[in-house]
Amino acid sequence: MINKLVANIQKTNAPIVVGLDPMMKFIPKHITDKAFAEKGETLEGAAEAIWQYNKGIVDAVYDLIPAVKPQIAMYEQFGIPGMVAFKKTVDYCKEKGLVVIGDIKRGDIGSTSAAYAVGHLGKVQVGSKSYYGFDEDFATVNPYLGSDGVNPFIDVCKEEKKGIFVLVKTSNPSSGEFQDKVTDGRPLYEIVGEQVNKWAESCMGDSYSYVGAVVGATYPEMGKVLRDIMPKSYILVPGYGAQGGKGKDLVHFFNKDGLGAIVNSSRGIIAAYQADAYKERFAPENYADASRQAVIDMQMDIAQALGN
Amino acid sequence: MINKLVANIQKTNAPIVVGLDPMMKFIPKHITDKAFAEKGETLEGAAEAIWQYNKGIVDAVYDLIPAVKPQIAMYEQFGIPGMVAFKKTVDYCKEKGLVVIGDIKRGDIGSTSAAYAVGHLGKVQVGSKSYYGFDEDFATVNPYLGSDGVNPFIDVCKEEKKGIFVLVKTSNPSSGEFQDKVTDGRPLYEIVGEQVNKWAESCMGDSYSYVGAVVGATYPEMGKVLRDIMPKSYILVPGYGAQGGKGKDLVHFFNKDGLGAIVNSSRGIIAAYQADAYKERFAPENYADASRQAVIDMQMDIAQALGN
Repeated sequence: MINKLVANIQKTNAPIVVGLDPMMKFIPKHITDKAFAEKGETLEGAAEAIWQYNKGIVDAVYDLIPAVKPQIAMYEQFGIPGMVAFKKTVDYCKEKGLVVIGDIKRGDIGSTSAAYAVGHLGKVQVGSKSYYGFDEDFATVNPYLGSDGVNPFIDVCKEEKKGIFVLVKTSNPSSGEFQDKVTDGRPLYEIVGEQVNKWAESCMGDSYSYVGAVVGATYPEMGKVLRDIMPKSYILVPGYGAQGGKGKDLVHFFNKDGLGAIVNSSRGIIAAYQADAYKERFAPENYADASRQAVIDMQMDIAQALGN
Repeated sequence: MINKLVANIQKTNAPIVVGLDPMMKFIPKHITDKAFAEKGETLEGAAEAIWQYNKGIVDAVYDLIPAVKPQIAMYEQFGIPGMVAFKKTVDYCKEKGLVVIGDIKRGDIGSTSAAYAVGHLGKVQVGSKSYYGFDEDFATVNPYLGSDGVNPFIDVCKEEKKGIFVLVKTSNPSSGEFQDKVTDGRPLYEIVGEQVNKWAESCMGDSYSYVGAVVGATYPEMGKVLRDIMPKSYILVPGYGAQGGKGKDLVHFFNKDGLGAIVNSSRGIIAAYQADAYKERFAPENYADASRQAVIDMQMDIAQALGN
């Protein structure tokens, strides 16, 4: 699947992943009105609105981008109906040829991590049959529990030719509280990065590994160091746009081959119609067109930054 | 809810939480046969088997224990039907008066962590109405992303009078890879523990805080240090039994008031009928009776250890 991700990026010339992180406040009124009319102001109504909203965005941008990253929390908060909307979104995006990165940030130990891996990337055994649960292409994984938590994911990745992105240095302001703690003269995130590199070497695709890393756009200098520590890992870069990361900050996350990083934008794309830059040009009814324009603008911003 | 947890522990005189972590290999054949006959060898069939298996155990032990801890991964691996079985299990245990600790190990940042908190402990807004998604009483939380990831949970805990257990030192062999790294002369888990103590002081129940910690039974010396660092936090102690932790290892996790820790056992209880100690006395059809006996034996083991 890392090969497909790289191929999709080369085909679209856009190292961009759209974060499908729907919040009710992003969804245009005409969509929520219709969903609530059909299913009431219920969890099912919210899930229907989310699904229709996502579908509109995906239909508008799928030819421009290699991948999407649905954030499962935004669905999970609506209980079972929300999880159904997550699954529908995953399936629909795959039908459209997109690589789906499940932003699930799971991580546990042994058989428990194996269950997460099986549920999101692999097949679960039921009697004599086996089934895919959520069936994303990639998943994000939290490394705090160490190798016991990550290895079960790697085992499933090898079997299914899928991949993971391990949290190394996250984009949020407080990420340094624990991740930056200096030990043996180096910050913890570097030590995690070195471990990611070991995992990465154990399961290579054609040019990049099934095992990638998450490093926030908001920490470009750390990104530079981590790029060198993990040469074979794709870096998933959150924090561009709404969180403050800019195109010029992204240069260090890429390798000399122009590959090696994929930059996420969530609300900057999916709620573009609400942003100052777009709201005069796009009415709420045309939210998907605004998303398309925002993808085009983001692609240009990154291309310019990488060109320099 | 921490007050209810303490009251339940005092009432039962059992600082025990039963981990409802069903695996297909634990479920007696008479249950899977019936479930598959009704719903086929499908995800729905597996979910039905899990639910019936859980219900049998809960019915057999609920009067002896204060709390249960369903591990969501074991349900999530079966996709949407698995999540439905998780929710049914949560609701049923609450009906029986048990405190439900959702072992979800979620953790993200800002609005995303808020969504997890809302989905598992709080209410989500849908138009003019609001709904509980999964509605556990407590959740386990991964701290790797720092305060940005934990504070949204604390906000919901204050509103709902619910609680969290933050991963500090996990029970698995590789937990030391990152958690034990020494920084400023102290291991990372102590620094996390100090942060937990700060969070804990900000939201107190009557005698203990809404904010607890996870510290593995397999590391009793570290438990002793962490007990002192976090005097107001309940410690959820995994790793007893199948993972190697013994009754005598548990002493240091408790405060002088005899409270402050709750010890988890999962397969040691729920699959007791398969264990050498019980399999001659209990047939698979009597798996729930074996679980009851295992709870009684565990309670005695801990009482003896604490009595010494």
